[in-house]
Amino acid sequence: MEQHVRVGLLGCGTVGEAFAELLVERSPAIESVTGISLELARIAVRDPGRPRSSKLDPELFTGNTDDVVKAEDIDIVVELIGGTKPVGELVMAALKAGKPVVTANKELVGSAGPELFAAAEQAGVDFFFEAAAVAAVPILRPLRESLLAEDVTRVAGIVNGTTNYILTRMMADGLGFGEVLAKAQELGLAEPDATADIEGADAASKAAILASLAFNQSVVAHNVTREGITGLEPEDFELAAQFGYVIKLLAVAERFPDGPDGIGSVGAQVFPALVERDHPLATVRDSFNAVFVTTSAAGELMFYGHGAGPRPSASSILGDVVSAADHLRRGTHRRVPVGPPAVMRPTQELVHSYYIRTEVNEAPGVLSEVTGVFGRHGVSIRKVDQQGSESQARVVFITFPATEHALHSALEELRGLGHVRDVGRVLRIYK
Amino acid sequence: MEQHVRVGLLGCGTVGEAFAELLVERSPAIESVTGISLELARIAVRDPGRPRSSKLDPELFTGNTDDVVKAEDIDIVVELIGGTKPVGELVMAALKAGKPVVTANKELVGSAGPELFAAAEQAGVDFFFEAAAVAAVPILRPLRESLLAEDVTRVAGIVNGTTNYILTRMMADGLGFGEVLAKAQELGLAEPDATADIEGADAASKAAILASLAFNQSVVAHNVTREGITGLEPEDFELAAQFGYVIKLLAVAERFPDGPDGIGSVGAQVFPALVERDHPLATVRDSFNAVFVTTSAAGELMFYGHGAGPRPSASSILGDVVSAADHLRRGTHRRVPVGPPAVMRPTQELVHSYYIRTEVNEAPGVLSEVTGVFGRHGVSIRKVDQQGSESQARVVFITFPATEHALHSALEELRGLGHVRDVGRVLRIYK
Ligand SMILES: NC(=O)c1ccc[n+]([C@@H]2O[C@H](COP(=O)([O-])OP(=O)(O)OC[C@H]3O[C@@H](n4cnc5c(N)ncnc54)[C@H](OP(=O)(O)O)[C@@H]3O)[C@@H](O)[C@H]2O)c1
Ligand SMILES: NC(=O)c1ccc[n+]([C@@H]2O[C@H](COP(=O)([O-])OP(=O)(O)OC[C@H]3O[C@@H](n4cnc5c(N)ncnc54)[C@H](OP(=O)(O)O)[C@@H]3O)[C@@H](O)[C@H]2O)c1
Repeated sequence: MEQHVRVGLLGCGTVGEAFAELLVERSPAIESVTGISLELARIAVRDPGRPRSSKLDPELFTGNTDDVVKAEDIDIVVELIGGTKPVGELVMAALKAGKPVVTANKELVGSAGPELFAAAEQAGVDFFFEAAAVAAVPILRPLRESLLAEDVTRVAGIVNGTTNYILTRMMADGLGFGEVLAKAQELGLAEPDATADIEGADAASKAAILASLAFNQSVVAHNVTREGITGLEPEDFELAAQFGYVIKLLAVAERFPDGPDGIGSVGAQVFPALVERDHPLATVRDSFNAVFVTTSAAGELMFYGHGAGPRPSASSILGDVVSAADHLRRGTHRRVPVGPPAVMRPTQELVHSYYIRTEVNEAPGVLSEVTGVFGRHGVSIRKVDQQGSESQARVVFITFPATEHALHSALEELRGLGHVRDVGRVLRIYK
Repeated sequence: MEQHVRVGLLGCGTVGEAFAELLVERSPAIESVTGISLELARIAVRDPGRPRSSKLDPELFTGNTDDVVKAEDIDIVVELIGGTKPVGELVMAALKAGKPVVTANKELVGSAGPELFAAAEQAGVDFFFEAAAVAAVPILRPLRESLLAEDVTRVAGIVNGTTNYILTRMMADGLGFGEVLAKAQELGLAEPDATADIEGADAASKAAILASLAFNQSVVAHNVTREGITGLEPEDFELAAQFGYVIKLLAVAERFPDGPDGIGSVGAQVFPALVERDHPLATVRDSFNAVFVTTSAAGELMFYGHGAGPRPSASSILGDVVSAADHLRRGTHRRVPVGPPAVMRPTQELVHSYYIRTEVNEAPGVLSEVTGVFGRHGVSIRKVDQQGSESQARVVFITFPATEHALHSALEELRGLGHVRDVGRVLRIYK
């Protein structure tokens, strides 16, 4: 069954241009394997007059998005503008015009996913966004298809390349956060304004997408509580290493079997965590990303690869385009997961073990006073490590699992103790 | 769109029973998510009189495979008998009767894949075999779908859990092969007859499956040259560690851009290899498996999880069944890759770096004589490490990349040198 498919592109920036070039480069091979001939038919940009890649026909460019979104002769729309405005309306218009849409826009899918899924389902067309989760890493398709019959209980990922690069360097070289960030910016591995990365907003969008697909319940980015990596100090990396851990920024989404009508509740967080040195996630270095999935029958799975970069993203987008084109030719589409809005479990009820670095004035009985406070709040101590001495000691506690609520009320009380000079860093321990 | 699908099962042994139980356990959840209600309708076994799991209705069992393969009221056939006879005919009969087939049978797919793919394509039905590659790890679907538009250049995997367990223990505990094998057998992690695992035949079947899907060319198990792990000695693990490596049994399939009409030629091998300690594959421990995929645009990807075990396998099989059921309801099927038979590149032309452990009688000029032999055959030496002394020395060479032919002719000549007492172990170095 031969099929000619005309692809319309919205946006031709870093990712859009890489995608356009890859489509042109790969389409003969795609045709020979699948019988589908992909034609890059039109490209809408803000400024059609700007010079573009010499590999792209200048005739393709237009300044009018309607030429892509509403045009009769466009079969599939690929959105690579980014952001939510005006992109949300453009994507909605394309879906309503009966066109399958492929996007890499995590901000859009992470915030407005449920409405777009519903619109696609109503129009009976594909809405694909593999590159919005972990760029080149095929994780959404396995979740949507291979693991559809599974009971997924947790998804934990290193889903931001910039922060993983920074943490890898801080861990390996013992440098401070600011220094490494500046270096990453110099190398083009962090944006000039890296806020969305280092404060975890980017990871939160991806956590929402992953949770929605893993649990078949709609989670949006503002359901995800988050903590970034800006406060981490070299000392934390040293101590982590002493205890056998590395520090990673994780997006963690978990499903709990309670909650109404058996679908369970969902907890979703982004935080820097201690990860055991031997855990597969600990070995994910530099700007690589990975998602670790826990299921009841398959057990533990991990998906690893480039979580950013124009060509890796383009590869993933093109994979989605070929799938959408194949579905068009078969007159079918993939059901978009439109689960009900998730019942979120309050963060205060989520359970972790913790690493707590404190500064205390050493005096007889201080340690027992401090552990007593933890105990009263239901936080049991698994390990204590005291360094320094005399009047000034640094004490690190590793706890058994306890709720965030228990932890915070214990810390609150600790702050009131005269001998505790500083309740320093608290890090969750990934288990 | 609701759909009731009747599943017929061939075989109810270790994996079959786990699959049957999982289907019964998960079908309410599958129905609520997908609208597809799966019914386990019939189970054919050798001895229907044998006692079975109490979770399975005894009425389902039959001793006649025709009741599954040819029955009007069976929509999908799941084959979990294993082996190639009479299973090849049963699967063929089911496909010809227009029934989609799901199997976990690597031996069958690895040897008779191409004919079965063709039969499925002709019948216009699905033929799925995700669990035949790396059990629970979703690797075939990403290769067939997400990476369909990609230029995959290499697939390298740890695809046998038994041997990975043995190698992990030999590496960690410094024990000998026989001792660890016996322990693995005691723990049920190796079969009483572990030949197919330890000599690489099982990995070769999986290499054939992975290569066929990655490169869209038919590779069968007997195209794969293989070397097992029986000859490895504790000393090799020690030396590997000194050089910064671990030892893993790898299945490696590579595509070369030469070859006729641009599709390139394929090299496929199974061998124990030195893998850099920091490489993601090195961190795959015990009976876990992983496949590392190299592509031109997406870069490096890795898929990790349980490569064996009844429940992990059942999970993967059930995922395939749900996909096949979804396709039935949409009146479609997934094109089965029926690439042309691969042009195999002769093993002698494949290129690796090597680790070579030799025993020499130390005498002035011996080292230069030996490196001279390597040099004459086009094998350049990157590192030499000499231990022991006086008359008896052990010399380890690490080479630069060279063809297997060059290596073997060098070794041949070395064996003729008086001062070389033993050209011991040769291991390829994974790069
Ligand atoms: N960078 C990555 O590694 C990566 C990875 C995965 C996903 N993504 C996602 O990919 C998307 C694109 O990112 P990017 O880095 O390629 O962005 P970019 O370089 O800023 O490119 C944006 C493109 O959109 C065009 N554009 C902007 N506003 C427009 C409007 N109103 N109408 C029409 N065209 C408009 C621009 O036109 P002009 O060319 O005329 O300015 C430009 O071509 C984002 O959603 C991002 O999150 C990026
Ligand atoms: N074990 C794993 O972890 C794993 C992982 C992935 C894939 N696999 C694959 O899964 C398949 C099944 O393996 P297994 O370990 O479950 O095998 P198994 O325990 O030996 O079970 C074989 C089943 O097939 C039935 N059977 C044998 N010959 C038959 C015949 N001629 N007609 C009808 N039924 C027949 C047997 O009937 P009775 O019960 O009456 O004896 C038994 O139920 C194999 O292809 C294997 O490679 C296994």
